[in-house]
Amino acid sequence: MKVVTFGEIMLKLSPASYQRLSQANQMMVEYAGAEANVAVSLANYGIETTYVSRLPQNALGDAAINTLRHYGVGIDNVCRGGERIGIYFVEKGAAQRPSKVIYDRTNSAIACSVPDDFDWEHILDGADWFHFTGITPALSDTLAQACLEACETARRKGVTVSCDLNYRKKLWSNEKAGKVMENLCQHVDVCIANEEDAQAVFGIMAPKSDASRGLIDAEGYKSVARQLAARFAFKHVAITLRESISASDNIWWAILFDGHEFYNTRKYNIHLVDRIGGGDAFGAGLIYGLLTLGSPQETIDFATAASCLKQTIEGDFNQVSVQEVLDLMHNGGAGRIVR
Amino acid sequence: MKVVTFGEIMLKLSPASYQRLSQANQMMVEYAGAEANVAVSLANYGIETTYVSRLPQNALGDAAINTLRHYGVGIDNVCRGGERIGIYFVEKGAAQRPSKVIYDRTNSAIACSVPDDFDWEHILDGADWFHFTGITPALSDTLAQACLEACETARRKGVTVSCDLNYRKKLWSNEKAGKVMENLCQHVDVCIANEEDAQAVFGIMAPKSDASRGLIDAEGYKSVARQLAARFAFKHVAITLRESISASDNIWWAILFDGHEFYNTRKYNIHLVDRIGGGDAFGAGLIYGLLTLGSPQETIDFATAASCLKQTIEGDFNQVSVQEVLDLMHNGGAGRIVR
Amino acid sequence: MKVVTFGEIMLKLSPASYQRLSQANQMMVEYAGAEANVAVSLANYGIETTYVSRLPQNALGDAAINTLRHYGVGIDNVCRGGERIGIYFVEKGAAQRPSKVIYDRTNSAIACSVPDDFDWEHILDGADWFHFTGITPALSDTLAQACLEACETARRKGVTVSCDLNYRKKLWSNEKAGKVMENLCQHVDVCIANEEDAQAVFGIMAPKSDASRGLIDAEGYKSVARQLAARFAFKHVAITLRESISASDNIWWAILFDGHEFYNTRKYNIHLVDRIGGGDAFGAGLIYGLLTLGSPQETIDFATAASCLKQTIEGDFNQVSVQEVLDLMHNGGAGRIVR
Amino acid sequence: MKVVTFGEIMLKLSPASYQRLSQANQMMVEYAGAEANVAVSLANYGIETTYVSRLPQNALGDAAINTLRHYGVGIDNVCRGGERIGIYFVEKGAAQRPSKVIYDRTNSAIACSVPDDFDWEHILDGADWFHFTGITPALSDTLAQACLEACETARRKGVTVSCDLNYRKKLWSNEKAGKVMENLCQHVDVCIANEEDAQAVFGIMAPKSDASRGLIDAEGYKSVARQLAARFAFKHVAITLRESISASDNIWWAILFDGHEFYNTRKYNIHLVDRIGGGDAFGAGLIYGLLTLGSPQETIDFATAASCLKQTIEGDFNQVSVQEVLDLMHNGGAGRIVR
Amino acid sequence: MKVVTFGEIMLKLSPASYQRLSQANQMMVEYAGAEANVAVSLANYGIETTYVSRLPQNALGDAAINTLRHYGVGIDNVCRGGERIGIYFVEKGAAQRPSKVIYDRTNSAIACSVPDDFDWEHILDGADWFHFTGITPALSDTLAQACLEACETARRKGVTVSCDLNYRKKLWSNEKAGKVMENLCQHVDVCIANEEDAQAVFGIMAPKSDASRGLIDAEGYKSVARQLAARFAFKHVAITLRESISASDNIWWAILFDGHEFYNTRKYNIHLVDRIGGGDAFGAGLIYGLLTLGSPQETIDFATAASCLKQTIEGDFNQVSVQEVLDLMHNGGAGRIVR
Amino acid sequence: MKVVTFGEIMLKLSPASYQRLSQANQMMVEYAGAEANVAVSLANYGIETTYVSRLPQNALGDAAINTLRHYGVGIDNVCRGGERIGIYFVEKGAAQRPSKVIYDRTNSAIACSVPDDFDWEHILDGADWFHFTGITPALSDTLAQACLEACETARRKGVTVSCDLNYRKKLWSNEKAGKVMENLCQHVDVCIANEEDAQAVFGIMAPKSDASRGLIDAEGYKSVARQLAARFAFKHVAITLRESISASDNIWWAILFDGHEFYNTRKYNIHLVDRIGGGDAFGAGLIYGLLTLGSPQETIDFATAASCLKQTIEGDFNQVSVQEVLDLMHNGGAGRIVR
Repeated sequence: MKVVTFGEIMLKLSPASYQRLSQANQMMVEYAGAEANVAVSLANYGIETTYVSRLPQNALGDAAINTLRHYGVGIDNVCRGGERIGIYFVEKGAAQRPSKVIYDRTNSAIACSVPDDFDWEHILDGADWFHFTGITPALSDTLAQACLEACETARRKGVTVSCDLNYRKKLWSNEKAGKVMENLCQHVDVCIANEEDAQAVFGIMAPKSDASRGLIDAEGYKSVARQLAARFAFKHVAITLRESISASDNIWWAILFDGHEFYNTRKYNIHLVDRIGGGDAFGAGLIYGLLTLGSPQETIDFATAASCLKQTIEGDFNQVSVQEVLDLMHNGGAGRIVR
Repeated sequence: MKVVTFGEIMLKLSPASYQRLSQANQMMVEYAGAEANVAVSLANYGIETTYVSRLPQNALGDAAINTLRHYGVGIDNVCRGGERIGIYFVEKGAAQRPSKVIYDRTNSAIACSVPDDFDWEHILDGADWFHFTGITPALSDTLAQACLEACETARRKGVTVSCDLNYRKKLWSNEKAGKVMENLCQHVDVCIANEEDAQAVFGIMAPKSDASRGLIDAEGYKSVARQLAARFAFKHVAITLRESISASDNIWWAILFDGHEFYNTRKYNIHLVDRIGGGDAFGAGLIYGLLTLGSPQETIDFATAASCLKQTIEGDFNQVSVQEVLDLMHNGGAGRIVR
Repeated sequence: MKVVTFGEIMLKLSPASYQRLSQANQMMVEYAGAEANVAVSLANYGIETTYVSRLPQNALGDAAINTLRHYGVGIDNVCRGGERIGIYFVEKGAAQRPSKVIYDRTNSAIACSVPDDFDWEHILDGADWFHFTGITPALSDTLAQACLEACETARRKGVTVSCDLNYRKKLWSNEKAGKVMENLCQHVDVCIANEEDAQAVFGIMAPKSDASRGLIDAEGYKSVARQLAARFAFKHVAITLRESISASDNIWWAILFDGHEFYNTRKYNIHLVDRIGGGDAFGAGLIYGLLTLGSPQETIDFATAASCLKQTIEGDFNQVSVQEVLDLMHNGGAGRIVR
Repeated sequence: MKVVTFGEIMLKLSPASYQRLSQANQMMVEYAGAEANVAVSLANYGIETTYVSRLPQNALGDAAINTLRHYGVGIDNVCRGGERIGIYFVEKGAAQRPSKVIYDRTNSAIACSVPDDFDWEHILDGADWFHFTGITPALSDTLAQACLEACETARRKGVTVSCDLNYRKKLWSNEKAGKVMENLCQHVDVCIANEEDAQAVFGIMAPKSDASRGLIDAEGYKSVARQLAARFAFKHVAITLRESISASDNIWWAILFDGHEFYNTRKYNIHLVDRIGGGDAFGAGLIYGLLTLGSPQETIDFATAASCLKQTIEGDFNQVSVQEVLDLMHNGGAGRIVR
Repeated sequence: MKVVTFGEIMLKLSPASYQRLSQANQMMVEYAGAEANVAVSLANYGIETTYVSRLPQNALGDAAINTLRHYGVGIDNVCRGGERIGIYFVEKGAAQRPSKVIYDRTNSAIACSVPDDFDWEHILDGADWFHFTGITPALSDTLAQACLEACETARRKGVTVSCDLNYRKKLWSNEKAGKVMENLCQHVDVCIANEEDAQAVFGIMAPKSDASRGLIDAEGYKSVARQLAARFAFKHVAITLRESISASDNIWWAILFDGHEFYNTRKYNIHLVDRIGGGDAFGAGLIYGLLTLGSPQETIDFATAASCLKQTIEGDFNQVSVQEVLDLMHNGGAGRIVR
Repeated sequence: MKVVTFGEIMLKLSPASYQRLSQANQMMVEYAGAEANVAVSLANYGIETTYVSRLPQNALGDAAINTLRHYGVGIDNVCRGGERIGIYFVEKGAAQRPSKVIYDRTNSAIACSVPDDFDWEHILDGADWFHFTGITPALSDTLAQACLEACETARRKGVTVSCDLNYRKKLWSNEKAGKVMENLCQHVDVCIANEEDAQAVFGIMAPKSDASRGLIDAEGYKSVARQLAARFAFKHVAITLRESISASDNIWWAILFDGHEFYNTRKYNIHLVDRIGGGDAFGAGLIYGLLTLGSPQETIDFATAASCLKQTIEGDFNQVSVQEVLDLMHNGGAGRIVR
């Protein structure tokens, strides 16, 4: 089995501990990004993955490549060129203080890529799955076009396509996002979203809930899932649900809709180590489940447990094995020492 | 608007993480102190501040000066001289283990200052507000006298005076504190206290509560506020209330009495990053509110939200902007990522 | 008063913070082990302690010796020899992710010791107490024999013997453990256990509880204590009880059975800093209590408060004084700052 | 006395110790830049300085401001706006391995500034000295124009102008640099250069030396100084001379030409801690000398000693006092402990 | 081109900076080993490499695998099994204090490998070069046999074989080494040695030099090279020469003998950052040179420059590109900043 | 054999690496002092040592005690009391920038000790050697008196007395020092000095040398040694000689005068890791040599080699074994790796 993901891997800089960005005289260095996080997670599960991107020909680009290789992600389709690597700065929140992210990704190597940089016919050869998120087409018109080409090629070759809507308001307007994503979602089989995404991109709302206040209504999400599935003929719609008690404690669960039934998971009350990458870990768990596990229930349970574990780990990557996810699914997370 | 604060800025040394002092082979270095913390907080809100103190003419004194300048605090009234900077060592507690502080501030530059070190007539020129805490007069008789001079000069010039009682039993006895503070409080407009302070300094008690056990009774505090206001003709009395669930989790709120009405705030259930400086952040928020916000309710809400945020931040200083405090006041602290 | 403990002190390597072992590019270095932890804790309480072990003649062996001396533990009975120090790697869990331990202790200096390495007649001269755990006899047949000799010598000399069952399934099978410990426990006065130990080693079960799921039934534990006491004529049986809510939060308490009565403690809801060494801190507290405190209730309260504090401290050692334990026993753990 | 400097302050990220950029999982955070370095150095000498620049309205811009204030540099003329702060990554070399710098400064806040951002008439009011380097006009045509305006305004107001040629081949071509700098240098009183600069910008060469190989010929430099002075009517030309033995050891000295005489300094054989910022420390020392010291010899000695000290200090800033520079000038650098 | 290397990759633990092992409360974590170092170096030069080894199925084995992948080394021939990863502890020396290494590699996964673990027929398919060092056969008789099989298979398939004698006296006696290596060297084409190796393993001595005292005589080494070449029909013999001035400063050069001529290199006077891995970097440079560069002189110059650079870099791996090595060869190492 | 040393152990705080004190946001924590350094060094050589001092009853005093115990130094004669531990801040110099020390030791526990704190009759029971330095009597008149009592008691009991003059100009004037030391030196057998000490304390000068400039004349030192021996009837006078090339490189050697002959050592050209404690390591080496080695030449060679090694080690303590010192004496310091 082989999964292809497409997106931007960035230099991530974050102060240690709970320091504010302006306090930091050291920053932790990582290389990560939504689709790279999915690729690493799948590689950790033993799935062959190929990551498609563009990185500058300098030491920072090299380091990003090394990071991908480190986890066994295939890098043959990362082309080199451009002036700079995208950067994001993350300040970890705590209690009543929210996490903050500063993006400095304009004019990054991939945002400046040209159509010829990605030969989808070749890249998708022998692939089983293609995954991208709404961030990639938001980076430039060329990339929106590349996503479309990738989706069309995938469909033609019988490759399953998944998309995490992942709306980022600093990258594009609701209108632009709606127009581009409408087009792309015609070719998508599996859609991952949360209420904010669905509303921002497609204007799909759940009655009576208010995600920005951390108030979530399960019925409302079922309605969102049904509306999404109806509009784009998605085979699966997965929605993650996060109740933010504070920046330190979240409740996390998910629902999966396969066009017929809804599958709910248990709720994880997570004392957070690092929530960034939780959604990507969910996406990877979902892909892994749909590719290898029997039932929709097991799939959504696996995806949710996997993403719960991610939020107990430092860094964007979900550094867990299949067995560790299954252990949580089956044993419940009481956290006794494994000697 | 210009605020003057007067006190001791010390070298603060603390082990990283939750190490005990005797375990530490490294310590974090900060320069902080109750009134300096207030000054930094106000400077972060865009208020012009001047800090009055005395520091030795060596690299440690320089570093303290640099720290104040870093945050935009005016240092023209920090005189140089004396043998040493005061030092305090802080061991951060966790769960059932309390934080511990060792003070090594005897014979510090400011404790050894002489009356001529501070020319209040000049310092308070053009000022709107003068703030000190009960720590400053406790350091030496000269400083108690300097506080009195400052208060009298302030009153004469129409400068509002605020005082945080901040009783420290290692610095002076209840009796000494009561006598000195009684005198000073004649000239104070705004008093900040907690039940322990009021009882220790002035023998004012609330019926039926026991602060040392973390049991707090709101009605009792109203009684304390009324008694304080009655005794000294304070225009405002603000009382902070802390329920210590453990060294890791506190509930925090406050009340304000303007001589007529009581204004209560919501309770913040804080998973603590660093509680030291919380009271000073409250003081700064209160001063900011009284200087710039319309209503007593907004003022006490601002002060409380500001000091809640402080307790989610490493270090004594409250490194937040006015907007961040307002966001917490209005949006509630669910801690969703700000991208 | 003099306490002798016998066991393996290892090099402990653990990533900082909540990193996984495979992520670590730095590891914290400690030297610790169940019986060494007990010795350090007792030395911190002012009890004269002697530690009996074997360490290689190299810089790592030297460092282990230095660590013991650091805390005032007597090292005259640590003999030198062998090829290597035992090592264990600890990855600290968080929330739903459990802590993991990798042992690399095969062929360690002490595991390769020969009978002549320990002269019990001499070692136990003037001792009041001898303590070991089930780990020591599990390391080699020679050590099982050495434990037996130590126990017999202790009994002959009127030295009280305590044993923490401490079953480690990677070191020996249930059967082997049962056989060896059956023999040793004939000479033991004070037994420390938890339900898993009692079941794994002696097949003693509590009805209706399931420790591996974090479900604990107090009545069941009383039954376990009664069965243990009945089988071996222990004078005291102490059982620690841990409800794992997650890897970040545990509820911790204990019961003591003196052959007649049961003594229960309050429950500590601990937001964990580092739970490893909690059981050893309990053992040390129990020994301290039985040696110096009047009543069984005070003893078990002391042991439980002591081990609660350990779990709020970084590292395996319980770096607290008798006074700090008493403060928690009497004042309850609200965590107010001690200035 | 008041000195104005104009340029870009950037976020500097560098691995600790001698790690390569691609190895780093942590980076040190500083905020620095050629002209900011000069301003900090002068502020450390007690000179009033104002820094003119443009920074984005985010936490990184705030931190840069705080850094300037930390050292007492005036920030009233730093305007806020633009999308990003310029960034540079520095890998420190050792022995035969050279240091490497990656610039990521395109589209920085200051590079995107518009003519109205800097009101030179106002900024230079009351100033005695205006300093910039060849980096500033290289960043954009707007900034080249701003430099010209600044120089013209300075001349008109009788403010001395100094310029460090500081040629950066990644920012502009020799041709472009030559054309722009030719124009600017008409208004410059004091020129700082090294042979590479003079050749790259103005095609002025010294016979027989090869700076890129670390071979330096003192006579050649005198010729360069004479040519520069002749071409632009500079009152002073200072040339720094660096013999690179390796990335760990350099020999450093300088010459000053006042149109009549040459003044040479002793040679400092420096075992380098951090050579970046050495040239800027020289510039600041030169300005300080010309403003406050009597003789050209003392001036160039001061500048050279100051910049020698910088290269023994971590970071771009020269964290030394006037007294420390004088001590080195007079006592020679034997490095005995000052107790 | 494809190179296969065979050996043990270990967990390397070393205190930061110049701390002694017994002082360390943190250690840096790396995964390295002589043949792995060669593989990483070649991968950095863009050569396809495959590493053959055996690692335990735990988080430390995973981390070693990740490290190899990080640098693009092929890990398909690393089999998993065994109980533990080999460990070595390195204390970095300085000035008159030598570096010290403690090995804890007995019973490591690879030392316990069985003949079937390595299928040389398959592994060497399509390979151009096979490299091992004298450490691998020293680890166990099985490995000595595996080396022999590998060498014989390589010869049969026309794969060039190189061997770095790398004598380690703690692993085997001179006699055992001599016997085993005598056998292996029959199949070796390229031999890398230093005088100590040649003497220890084969009793080959240079007249009048004393390597242990840092005294080296170039003529003596030529004699050693000639003797080695004569005895085993090596096509190339390369000898590295190190004059230890102190643990901080070494002079480093090499000679190559191709059976006809001697090729000498310039001498690098290296202010050491980390000398461990220098010899492996030399080996990799030599293999790279023989595979891709025209002349013996260029080859030995490349190998020597490469290994000089390694000694300016933290860690065992030579993190440099071909271009960086060529720059040093051609430009000489004056260490000017590359901007 | 048993050695008693008497002095002040302080909290030492120093920035990591080559940061200036005012730059540090972290400091390394050590507990050290001239006589404690000697005690640790001797304990490392296997000599029984007892340290006599006074420390406050708080966590910092505890940590100092733990540090002494860590190295096996006897602490039974460290009494507890007083308000504070003495502190010193050390900024490590590099190249032309000297190291700087700020002392904050006034009113330390030992400086405030009273005569009854030290019972010399008891302390010196069974001792072979008593060592102190000129720092101890400089701390207070009480301590000067305690030193005198100690010396007199030692002489009466036949205990050899050594004194390192160790003049500190910040502690007392030349006059005061001269008067007190004149008195004490009547009872001293072994005197350790450098030219600065001899001149400052006793006005003894060497012709034609200038220590403050790093110019040293061996003949001059012989004259100093002769004058010292003549004045006080010392049995041995040892003088250390340091040529400061820079703060990074020193040349270090010594001479010993036994009243008849002079014994010179080789010169060590040391690339410094940390020179503080070098003199104390020399003192300990001298005591060790005089106690256990046969000849004066071996003694002074041992002392010099030992103190050379200290200067290659982080921290004030000389963490070396007798064997390591002998290795340097006999093998010369070429720094080859010890595997």
